[in-house]
Amino acid sequence: MTPDLPEPPYYAVIFTSQRKAVQDGYADTAERMVALAAAQHGYLGAESTRGADGLGITVSYWRTPEDIARWRRDTEHQAARDTGRARWYERYTLRVARVERAYAWERSDGTQDPQT
Amino acid sequence: MTPDLPEPPYYAVIFTSQRKAVQDGYADTAERMVALAAAQHGYLGAESTRGADGLGITVSYWRTPEDIARWRRDTEHQAARDTGRARWYERYTLRVARVERAYAWERSDGTQDPQT
Repeated sequence: MTPDLPEPPYYAVIFTSQRKAVQDGYADTAERMVALAAAQHGYLGAESTRGADGLGITVSYWRTPEDIARWRRDTEHQAARDTGRARWYERYTLRVARVERAYAWERSDGTQDPQT
Repeated sequence: MTPDLPEPPYYAVIFTSQRKAVQDGYADTAERMVALAAAQHGYLGAESTRGADGLGITVSYWRTPEDIARWRRDTEHQAARDTGRARWYERYTLRVARVERAYAWERSDGTQDPQT
């Protein structure tokens, strides 16, 4: 049984970042932002990972572009982004994309391609 | 100076996967698929990372949905996906999304929000 997925269309914010070696305060702020985002209107979920080389990808999912814009205006979120640029990141790219199709597979589904 | 970004709209394939502990052949196939994808028509780039917990996110970027469909039909790519389900993955989710906006920032740009 595959995990529940929201029905497209919905929106993805793809945030790719290269961290600096400096860590001070990052983990606490990141954890706080995850909790704060999850409480926002239109939030559908997020997936995040970072490799040993400091390259991270976080994708958050939202019902509408207006939900993304509202979260972007959140003052605590704005302050965290400012700190990120001042302290934690070497570079990042942010993309807003409209999810048009989604498929999930898990082992108990068998080995067939879920898209066929 | 921020890295070059293609002008939206273009398309993103967001592939989130949970790996099993078993590694046999995975790295070689993954490397081969990266090289093969890069040679496809309409390929714009990709970003990939995996954390110590086995959760990975790969986002590849394409000019059109037709380019994505063509890459999906590639027989060597199909065989690699079959092997992935048989051997390497516990679960995965794949989303196709239309990139509508994109921003990049790097340290030498200064600390201002690149979206303002």
